Amino acid sequence: MSSFDQLITHVHELDDLGKASAVLYWDREVNMPHAGMAERIAQMTTLSSLIHRMSTSDEMGEMIERAAAELDGTDYDSREAALIRVLRRHYADARKLPADYVTRSSQVSGRAHEAWVKARAENDFTHFQPWLEQVVALCQELAGYYGYEDEAYDPLLDKYETDMKTAEVRAIFDALKADLVPLREAIDRSPVQIDDSILHQPYDVAKQKEYARYAATALGYDFNRGHLGTVVHPFATSFSRNDARITTRWYPDFINPSLFGTLHECGHAMYEQGTGAELARTPLARGTSSGIHESQSRMMENLVGRSRGFWQAHFPALQALFPEALGDSTADDFYRAINKTQPSFIRVEADELTYNFHIILRFELEQAMLNGDLAVADLPAAWNDKMQAMLGVTPPNDSQGCLQDVHWTRPGFGYFPTYALGNLYAAQFMETAVAQNPAIADELAQGQTTALLAWLRQNIHRHGRKFTPGELVQRVTGQPLSHAAFMRYATAKFGELYDL
Amino acid sequence: MSSFDQLITHVHELDDLGKASAVLYWDREVNMPHAGMAERIAQMTTLSSLIHRMSTSDEMGEMIERAAAELDGTDYDSREAALIRVLRRHYADARKLPADYVTRSSQVSGRAHEAWVKARAENDFTHFQPWLEQVVALCQELAGYYGYEDEAYDPLLDKYETDMKTAEVRAIFDALKADLVPLREAIDRSPVQIDDSILHQPYDVAKQKEYARYAATALGYDFNRGHLGTVVHPFATSFSRNDARITTRWYPDFINPSLFGTLHECGHAMYEQGTGAELARTPLARGTSSGIHESQSRMMENLVGRSRGFWQAHFPALQALFPEALGDSTADDFYRAINKTQPSFIRVEADELTYNFHIILRFELEQAMLNGDLAVADLPAAWNDKMQAMLGVTPPNDSQGCLQDVHWTRPGFGYFPTYALGNLYAAQFMETAVAQNPAIADELAQGQTTALLAWLRQNIHRHGRKFTPGELVQRVTGQPLSHAAFMRYATAKFGELYDL
Repeated sequence: MSSFDQLITHVHELDDLGKASAVLYWDREVNMPHAGMAERIAQMTTLSSLIHRMSTSDEMGEMIERAAAELDGTDYDSREAALIRVLRRHYADARKLPADYVTRSSQVSGRAHEAWVKARAENDFTHFQPWLEQVVALCQELAGYYGYEDEAYDPLLDKYETDMKTAEVRAIFDALKADLVPLREAIDRSPVQIDDSILHQPYDVAKQKEYARYAATALGYDFNRGHLGTVVHPFATSFSRNDARITTRWYPDFINPSLFGTLHECGHAMYEQGTGAELARTPLARGTSSGIHESQSRMMENLVGRSRGFWQAHFPALQALFPEALGDSTADDFYRAINKTQPSFIRVEADELTYNFHIILRFELEQAMLNGDLAVADLPAAWNDKMQAMLGVTPPNDSQGCLQDVHWTRPGFGYFPTYALGNLYAAQFMETAVAQNPAIADELAQGQTTALLAWLRQNIHRHGRKFTPGELVQRVTGQPLSHAAFMRYATAKFGELYDL
Repeated sequence: MSSFDQLITHVHELDDLGKASAVLYWDREVNMPHAGMAERIAQMTTLSSLIHRMSTSDEMGEMIERAAAELDGTDYDSREAALIRVLRRHYADARKLPADYVTRSSQVSGRAHEAWVKARAENDFTHFQPWLEQVVALCQELAGYYGYEDEAYDPLLDKYETDMKTAEVRAIFDALKADLVPLREAIDRSPVQIDDSILHQPYDVAKQKEYARYAATALGYDFNRGHLGTVVHPFATSFSRNDARITTRWYPDFINPSLFGTLHECGHAMYEQGTGAELARTPLARGTSSGIHESQSRMMENLVGRSRGFWQAHFPALQALFPEALGDSTADDFYRAINKTQPSFIRVEADELTYNFHIILRFELEQAMLNGDLAVADLPAAWNDKMQAMLGVTPPNDSQGCLQDVHWTRPGFGYFPTYALGNLYAAQFMETAVAQNPAIADELAQGQTTALLAWLRQNIHRHGRKFTPGELVQRVTGQPLSHAAFMRYATAKFGELYDL
């Protein structure tokens, strides 16, 4: 048995255990009675401890290095070389974290979550403040363990967006902000008023489910290798390329969450369905980064799912299911309603365009807190200042301001920016795709995605995690990530909608 | 840390992994797209290999013995002493099986299953015969590994019914047969003809689901600590006492499978819901044997679920859901229809009374094949002879005879008898319960199970696996298992139904 074969056997086992843990999570969210929580947490903790022990053992490090030596000179693009790169990275990272840090981090997060729930419910930031201070301290400690050359935020960002530097994101976001604020202000001044009240009407949930399946299938999500579950907080997950699942929530009087939530999760799951079969049961068989993953979900949700072509093709089916709600509306009415843009307080309810401001704000505040430039006590004021500067509005209270997200109950700084990076990657990928194959645009104008999906599979999905996000975007689009394609897309789309 | 604490920490981890594997199985049956099968099998195989490695390691044996020495003299009834007993037994058994046997057994079973599917579809026993010969050889080999004093069948039976001997089951089944054949013949001669056609009508599946939940709740199944899933082959499983699940299948034109299937699985799941909280995350937190488990499912399905009291109380709700099918029927019509008894060929469709013959037949044939008294080639003829002797009918072909069950595709001889043992245990437990607390009978006559469930919890459920089935039945009923209570129950019930 070669050293690589020994390694891959071990990697397969580790990957199987990780997938088992993912099934336990899925089941917990979709099926489990709440009473089963304590035992389920015990089961998941046992699995993750075991995975941690196995993947950080000296033996694992030796196996990786023996296989690496054996494979020396193997093509950079090969599965084998990519696997060694990813395993080395994960191994080194995992070995850097002291066990007591992991325990403390988990304990603080649990109590911070409780404090956050109370603070948000009572609209009182002071409940959360001491816990957020601890979370910031945990982030600083984490950056110290991982180490960095330039900025403390770098190693945190690197966990979600491998090899991307804070300075790079900052430059992109600054440029985006510089272009996006004037566009938003132009829209504010536009006399065009979009009425989106048709979205807020009674929509029978059973029919919403039927349409969600229809729309997911129209996008290219493969139900033969997938499953749709109902949850409170939607997510996508996969246990293999042949079992990549989506989840959705259903509101009886608002169609957007189920509709665009489903399309969003489909984008994630289609990425996993498209990973190369030869990558199965290894850490390569998943999306390469949070940002690239988000590019796939945003592309399906927004660039495809909020396009005129999609709704010209698929509005009739929606209208047929909901004749009372939509009988008097046209595809164009619906297209306009779902693309209404306006400043708002809550990130998860923000539209495609203003969403980016919510992210830039968090990215800037995370750095300021991490670097000690902003005391946690001053967060609410800083939040409101940035809201006013970028969106022209000020939240009426902290529950609709700096207390709205669950994310800061955990030391996960560096994750937020990937949401907006996803929007930018998506636009840059789409521009390249259409340039390389004009049939993609023709099809999309008819509400069809076959050519687009083939392009995504060929250029992005099949590679799984073989390349870093920076390598991938360069490889696929011939240049590094920038905000330019997104601005071209947004300017054209919203310019037309708002008569700019 | 005491030796017992060290052991229990390890036991908890092992139990968590076992439960994770059970979740993977549940998910596979209930949610998984078929395409995900290969990867799911890999995940489950990795988990079971890991569990096997951990639970058969020298270290595990040493941990058990160190804890046993520390606990020397602990009360036999204590959780600690019971855990040592069960762990020693499992450890010794698991160490007896060579790894290559496990692999071969799994391979033969896979191919035997394929051959069986073909044989049954083409109604040609010769396709299956060479594979059944291998399965019998595997059973013989297994008996050799486990070892035995009296009969080769003993160690196989012991896997499902700890410490019960073949001779004991044979004596019970012989007595049962001696009493049951005359009862069946008397029913055959009875002029009473029961019409069960009301069961075979269109029953809307959504309403069947509603009623299944209603009936499960009426039995005492706790949905706050449970979940009902849809599958092809129903089963119950638990991931803790706080998450014990049932599954059901739904036929649009036959109410029995969903109705009595649900009640049956509820009995299993209620047993697991009732295990003592102090047994959590150990192998004690489950039913003690296949036979005792089946006693709980049969009690709920038959002794409660096919009782006159249950239907006098709960027929109106069924009738209200299905006015077209049942509007002209009475609770008594329904009670009679669901208790119609008649000889038939297929075990899983057999009624409460004749079901036992199907089991006795298999028990006898398994022993004959295992001991070399019956050549596999002669199985079809031997099967038909026994059917004629016990049930007075002869199957028209082998697909409705010796090819009907999937069980013999695996070396699992010894499991079949536990189905009938369950019926006998159930009757003996019920007789004791009612004798000890007459309110149980009064309640059951009103379709209520609160007192019965409290009795079951106190006397059976809470103990989990602390006692062997023999210990339990002696402890609870004051005597060993016999067929007497079942015969009293059956004679009274069917005597009344058939005017004997």
